[in-house]
Amino acid sequence: MNGINIAYIGGGSRGWAWGLMSDLALEPALCGTVRLYDIDMEAARENAIIGNRLAEREDVVSSWRYEVSASLEKALAGADFVVISILPGSLETMAVDVHTPERYGIFQAVGDTVGPGGAMRAFRTIPLYIEIAEAIRDHAPDAWVINYTNPMSVCTRTLYRVFPGIKAIGNCHEVFGTQKLLARALEEVKGVQDVTREEIRVNVLGINHFTWITRAAWRDIDLFPVYEAFVEKHHAVGYESEQTGNWMNDFFSSANRVKFDLFRRYGVIAAAGDRHLAEFCPNRWYLKDAETVRAWKFSLTPVAWRLENQKERLEKGRRLAAGLEPFALQETGEEGVRQMKALLGLGDLVTNVNLPNRGQIPSLPMGAIVETNALFTRDSVTPIQSGTLPLPVLSMVERHIRNQEGIVEATFTRDRHLAFQTFLNDPLVDLDLPEAEACFRAMDQGYFD
Amino acid sequence: MNGINIAYIGGGSRGWAWGLMSDLALEPALCGTVRLYDIDMEAARENAIIGNRLAEREDVVSSWRYEVSASLEKALAGADFVVISILPGSLETMAVDVHTPERYGIFQAVGDTVGPGGAMRAFRTIPLYIEIAEAIRDHAPDAWVINYTNPMSVCTRTLYRVFPGIKAIGNCHEVFGTQKLLARALEEVKGVQDVTREEIRVNVLGINHFTWITRAAWRDIDLFPVYEAFVEKHHAVGYESEQTGNWMNDFFSSANRVKFDLFRRYGVIAAAGDRHLAEFCPNRWYLKDAETVRAWKFSLTPVAWRLENQKERLEKGRRLAAGLEPFALQETGEEGVRQMKALLGLGDLVTNVNLPNRGQIPSLPMGAIVETNALFTRDSVTPIQSGTLPLPVLSMVERHIRNQEGIVEATFTRDRHLAFQTFLNDPLVDLDLPEAEACFRAMDQGYFD
Amino acid sequence: MNGINIAYIGGGSRGWAWGLMSDLALEPALCGTVRLYDIDMEAARENAIIGNRLAEREDVVSSWRYEVSASLEKALAGADFVVISILPGSLETMAVDVHTPERYGIFQAVGDTVGPGGAMRAFRTIPLYIEIAEAIRDHAPDAWVINYTNPMSVCTRTLYRVFPGIKAIGNCHEVFGTQKLLARALEEVKGVQDVTREEIRVNVLGINHFTWITRAAWRDIDLFPVYEAFVEKHHAVGYESEQTGNWMNDFFSSANRVKFDLFRRYGVIAAAGDRHLAEFCPNRWYLKDAETVRAWKFSLTPVAWRLENQKERLEKGRRLAAGLEPFALQETGEEGVRQMKALLGLGDLVTNVNLPNRGQIPSLPMGAIVETNALFTRDSVTPIQSGTLPLPVLSMVERHIRNQEGIVEATFTRDRHLAFQTFLNDPLVDLDLPEAEACFRAMDQGYFD
Amino acid sequence: MNGINIAYIGGGSRGWAWGLMSDLALEPALCGTVRLYDIDMEAARENAIIGNRLAEREDVVSSWRYEVSASLEKALAGADFVVISILPGSLETMAVDVHTPERYGIFQAVGDTVGPGGAMRAFRTIPLYIEIAEAIRDHAPDAWVINYTNPMSVCTRTLYRVFPGIKAIGNCHEVFGTQKLLARALEEVKGVQDVTREEIRVNVLGINHFTWITRAAWRDIDLFPVYEAFVEKHHAVGYESEQTGNWMNDFFSSANRVKFDLFRRYGVIAAAGDRHLAEFCPNRWYLKDAETVRAWKFSLTPVAWRLENQKERLEKGRRLAAGLEPFALQETGEEGVRQMKALLGLGDLVTNVNLPNRGQIPSLPMGAIVETNALFTRDSVTPIQSGTLPLPVLSMVERHIRNQEGIVEATFTRDRHLAFQTFLNDPLVDLDLPEAEACFRAMDQGYFD
Repeated sequence: MNGINIAYIGGGSRGWAWGLMSDLALEPALCGTVRLYDIDMEAARENAIIGNRLAEREDVVSSWRYEVSASLEKALAGADFVVISILPGSLETMAVDVHTPERYGIFQAVGDTVGPGGAMRAFRTIPLYIEIAEAIRDHAPDAWVINYTNPMSVCTRTLYRVFPGIKAIGNCHEVFGTQKLLARALEEVKGVQDVTREEIRVNVLGINHFTWITRAAWRDIDLFPVYEAFVEKHHAVGYESEQTGNWMNDFFSSANRVKFDLFRRYGVIAAAGDRHLAEFCPNRWYLKDAETVRAWKFSLTPVAWRLENQKERLEKGRRLAAGLEPFALQETGEEGVRQMKALLGLGDLVTNVNLPNRGQIPSLPMGAIVETNALFTRDSVTPIQSGTLPLPVLSMVERHIRNQEGIVEATFTRDRHLAFQTFLNDPLVDLDLPEAEACFRAMDQGYFD
Repeated sequence: MNGINIAYIGGGSRGWAWGLMSDLALEPALCGTVRLYDIDMEAARENAIIGNRLAEREDVVSSWRYEVSASLEKALAGADFVVISILPGSLETMAVDVHTPERYGIFQAVGDTVGPGGAMRAFRTIPLYIEIAEAIRDHAPDAWVINYTNPMSVCTRTLYRVFPGIKAIGNCHEVFGTQKLLARALEEVKGVQDVTREEIRVNVLGINHFTWITRAAWRDIDLFPVYEAFVEKHHAVGYESEQTGNWMNDFFSSANRVKFDLFRRYGVIAAAGDRHLAEFCPNRWYLKDAETVRAWKFSLTPVAWRLENQKERLEKGRRLAAGLEPFALQETGEEGVRQMKALLGLGDLVTNVNLPNRGQIPSLPMGAIVETNALFTRDSVTPIQSGTLPLPVLSMVERHIRNQEGIVEATFTRDRHLAFQTFLNDPLVDLDLPEAEACFRAMDQGYFD
Repeated sequence: MNGINIAYIGGGSRGWAWGLMSDLALEPALCGTVRLYDIDMEAARENAIIGNRLAEREDVVSSWRYEVSASLEKALAGADFVVISILPGSLETMAVDVHTPERYGIFQAVGDTVGPGGAMRAFRTIPLYIEIAEAIRDHAPDAWVINYTNPMSVCTRTLYRVFPGIKAIGNCHEVFGTQKLLARALEEVKGVQDVTREEIRVNVLGINHFTWITRAAWRDIDLFPVYEAFVEKHHAVGYESEQTGNWMNDFFSSANRVKFDLFRRYGVIAAAGDRHLAEFCPNRWYLKDAETVRAWKFSLTPVAWRLENQKERLEKGRRLAAGLEPFALQETGEEGVRQMKALLGLGDLVTNVNLPNRGQIPSLPMGAIVETNALFTRDSVTPIQSGTLPLPVLSMVERHIRNQEGIVEATFTRDRHLAFQTFLNDPLVDLDLPEAEACFRAMDQGYFD
Repeated sequence: MNGINIAYIGGGSRGWAWGLMSDLALEPALCGTVRLYDIDMEAARENAIIGNRLAEREDVVSSWRYEVSASLEKALAGADFVVISILPGSLETMAVDVHTPERYGIFQAVGDTVGPGGAMRAFRTIPLYIEIAEAIRDHAPDAWVINYTNPMSVCTRTLYRVFPGIKAIGNCHEVFGTQKLLARALEEVKGVQDVTREEIRVNVLGINHFTWITRAAWRDIDLFPVYEAFVEKHHAVGYESEQTGNWMNDFFSSANRVKFDLFRRYGVIAAAGDRHLAEFCPNRWYLKDAETVRAWKFSLTPVAWRLENQKERLEKGRRLAAGLEPFALQETGEEGVRQMKALLGLGDLVTNVNLPNRGQIPSLPMGAIVETNALFTRDSVTPIQSGTLPLPVLSMVERHIRNQEGIVEATFTRDRHLAFQTFLNDPLVDLDLPEAEACFRAMDQGYFD
């Protein structure tokens, strides 16, 4: 198919933009134009150069043109797809999100989804998403919108709250990692080798980064007893596959001990990285202090590392744009392009995605953004009924859903009071009332002024 | 996969049993045993002979053994699948269902689903299904149960009411016919040839025999404008494809004029045969009198024809069992065997199926048996969210759902009074109150004694 | 309490306006101003004269001033209460609603709620209510709004659809009549005399004019067996109390035979006059033809009578305004003024009222306008949970709810096609498709132009 | 009314039994028999003597006979009302509930509703309630059941889970105390004196002991601004009325500082004593340590005090039974007897009560036991729609509802694992995982053996 228009909002951080370029370059069925819009227009320009340079290579099987749009409206006009992946605020601001709470004894492994850091990030991202949603409503109401920005749930909720008719989904790869882990378990327990993560069928439900698998199978093999055996063997010391790094020297790795502990506790499989999962649980379980974190074998990613890494990526960007470094073409494993194909009618796809609850999880509030499987087919994404969760898990998920709604409501209505009461209800905020007020005040970058 | 156990309940009418034999014989992935149970044990015995005779043929790619079970319990014990297709009562009784109401001006094209005939058939089928459900609960609680018996909705509802933990689905091929019609439209309007019905993606929702398609696509082509063009061209005189018979000489054919009229009226595609659709609508629309039926170009199937046809099938059974006639091996187009494969983990399948409403149609009562798409994967059938229907269609569907629940409730509680009040609420029962009472009395074969 | 402001919208038909004047005059606790607004300003002016003349009388126990407002906005500004009782269109138009369908065999006893007449009346009333609701939202958002106009359900629904924050209720006295009938039954069956209708406790649920009582008591006496005995005695010939007229010479009377028949059928008490009840049921039950109506002992009110009666009321109005006839002061039995008192904090009240469904009838669609009991207390009306209805009754109510929503939707979106399909779903429209189209066309006064 | 039969289950602790005797003695409208059943039959016998002795007094305006029943069945047979107020387990066991968690830093003011103590009390009370519910189902299915035992929510839930047709309500007087506080505020802020708590109209919603008032009025005065002024004046140092004791020397008193803080935080009025409220909130808010509790000016009731008090009550019982001390006749302010009158048809009553959620709080799970207002009328209790709560309050309430359901489910299925995971989700359990396990183990008196 030719002539497809993609509007790409953000991408200044490079990573997601280059990933999309790779996946488009390797997909022979689609050709068209990508319009890049970023508040950092220089970044967009550099990405356009990289993309167009890539398009000329012989190992590229499709034909895509990259253009820079001077405004959001221009990027959106006529778009078939809108991809959003922005960095809300600077990494310096993120340092406040992540490290200020440490002064109050609250440690966060990521700090971008829930907890004190997730809340602050939401307070500054939601206003941007209000603008984006209004622009989509006015300039590309029929486009399919794929969101990658965190905090996923509140960003997607904002899109739908502003423009209820939007055709938006939220994408996240955390479940994929758990499918890979199930493939490892299958290999170890049953000796089945070379199973790809796509072959692992899972029933997914929950909210982004706190998603759960309640059924899993590979062909005719029920993977629950397989995973149980695997967990019983590894839970005490943890499990790390060779493909990923080691939790001690890789800020993004873990030994899956949190995931294993949650399985032993609830009998369902937590389907996100341990660093995310820990942040959704009561403070003292996995993040009580440095020693506890070490014992559970995961890391707290310091923002200093992100700053360093960002510098490297910017440098790499310059080299790529200047042709001083070849673009490493490889599939990312992300599903955005596959989803586009399905939405264009080129084959169905069942995968997990974030959408408003229309009944796919009947025991959770309608309208809340939930993550479940959905069927992608031509111009349509329909969630699949996912059943329910064990009561204590349901309660934890529900608490975050109410907090997310409180955060969205507080930001829309500029209600700092509600924002703080919602903050108080976060499981990581294990503080007495004066401490909590001090912590919130110290983190608030004028979000409600 | 070997060693699969299928319990087949019913089949004395031969048709469905032979179909299953064909599909199993042509599916190389599955082997095992089919245990046949029928209250007419002679019929089961004859079917077993036919099945085992077929198994020896060289063009059969699987290995199945057919056995007769002396009791329901024996058939069920150890079953992986239970297939139910019974004829509730005799065709002589069915003649009362279909033809007695004609004396009151109520004409029925089929008389087995809704309307006066559907109600009576339900009154005598539900008690049988209570027994079957109890037996499954006690002897095969983990088996997947595939129901083919009509009235589909109340039979499936009974299974779940008796045994809420049952893993039962209701199968019907009416939607397939509409997919084929869409393929015809695609050919005629767009010139695309040889599209199979499986390639036509449809979003299905409603209740059995009154199911609706709200989105349809073939690859990247939206089939709604295609169908609209097709309907505008054909609605006045009707459309009949060469593959099927002509409505004038085939009691099961129609010219799709009812279907076209409903599309023009509601903007969504009715996905069942005209003979069924007409029975769900107010009496005077399509079934007012013989002339009206003729004008809409479909037929009222007389039970006399069914009796004649049954005689032929019994005779054919005798010849098949005696080896005097070769078994004509061909795929039926039914999905039972494909569903079994998916449930065994041998590849996912998305298709339409009857299940209790757990939120797949949030605007209809929870627990009601509704027909929507579902994802079949290993040991799991999960319905797909289907959105909602135009208000007037929703209302018609809802009315039948309430009636079906009333019929089930009345039969469970042996409440003739409720049964009659429910009967009164059927759209075909366009009678004054004394006539309605007389009609009910004339049709009641002692169901509430 | 002094200084209460009431805006009275409509009242040109005099009846309701004079009733309010009476009730205010006889209620010592409230004093203030009534601002009258009517598109027929002369009518408002005459009413003001009548009201102010009345205020001077010695037997009046309160002090109210009546003013004419030149615009809706002026009437509303500063209002504590808004009372709406308008006549949408002329009686000549109503003659089309009521009598045109008779040419197609559809007889209506009232023709203002459901059926062909109710639909047409809705099509012309809803646009007026959109304007009123917008004006209330903009000029009196905190006022309590009491609606008396029919069709009650769609008018109230329109108010909430335009202005979801409105504090509106819909009032109707039909249930009161049924309470009085229960008092009669109590007297006859148990010999208990002089019981007022307020002493009869009833659990009310349904929709306006098709409301049902599922529990009834006087003190410690369960009135269901009492009513059952009463019905068994009278259902064959009917029952008329001396207080009301006789069905043969009073177009508003009935012998309650429809009510009794519905009780025998469903075991719950229909709580509206027979003339209304009959219109909610299938055409052939009680309105099949003149003979049927006579046999059920109620009347079809001809619009000619209404015209005559209107003339008399206008004449009476002139005499009242001119002081040629004394105003007959007496309590109307309506509850508007009592409700105002309760809303002002002067004593709680439990009574039946029309409100959006927020869960008071969980088995009916949320948001639909339903009639149940509610607790009135200071600045608050909270519906009382009412349980559910027998399935066949639930289905009939639900069908009308869907039709009412269809009518509202069609009028808001000016969708004549939807309007007609909704019309088709009305139980009185027992026509074949061409007849139905002809009937709709003949009745449509350009509502969708 | 004569001949009323009340079965009184429990009462060995005397307090509630004597209260009922008082209220019955002072209510002229009701006469009959109270059948006392207690597993401590001696206690029942003593209560019967006290009751019958009281019945002979001249200042008693009704006639009641007290009998001892040898079995639960005998007590229930023919009962019109069943009153349940049992002490589950001994006070020695309660000492474990309350004081063992202190070793882990968890302080409880009451320890009988939620928190570690509430959970353990639930584990041993639910089995008793299963028995009681079965006995009521079998011997008094039509009786109205009034529960006073804590933990209220899980006890009432158990009654309905065992016998869904039960007519049971849960009564609690905590809201009354808040009504009295509002009367104090009215006096202080507006100078209105001698307002009784019944005159204060409140809209109540939530769960028992964590109930909230979202609207309050006295006559035409909105009490929210009144309460706000009152709170602003007193929140810093607290408010204690002269009628109740002082928090420093009365284990049941408080200075309402928790209640005031919650109002300032959420804008709605918490309607239970501070000692209860504190236990529903995160550990560190009001119960972090002894100093925090002192600062908030309430007390932790030591079980030693209860033991001492119990001893005094038993001694008093002996004196009353022996006629050595006169029975002090006075109304208790409880509503049980008033409710009985209303249920017997002797006048309606609107009051707050615990019932399964049938839609009265649509934002909370259906079926959960919630506390809202309800209308009591003859043989009927219907909840009143109560709207919803601010999001952070809703979330806290919802979390306890899920925990209560988890506790009930775990006790019914004897699932210690689920019981512990539910325990972990309690806001007071601010422990790391090993501590939590140790604490649970130390408190578990073999509940799941």
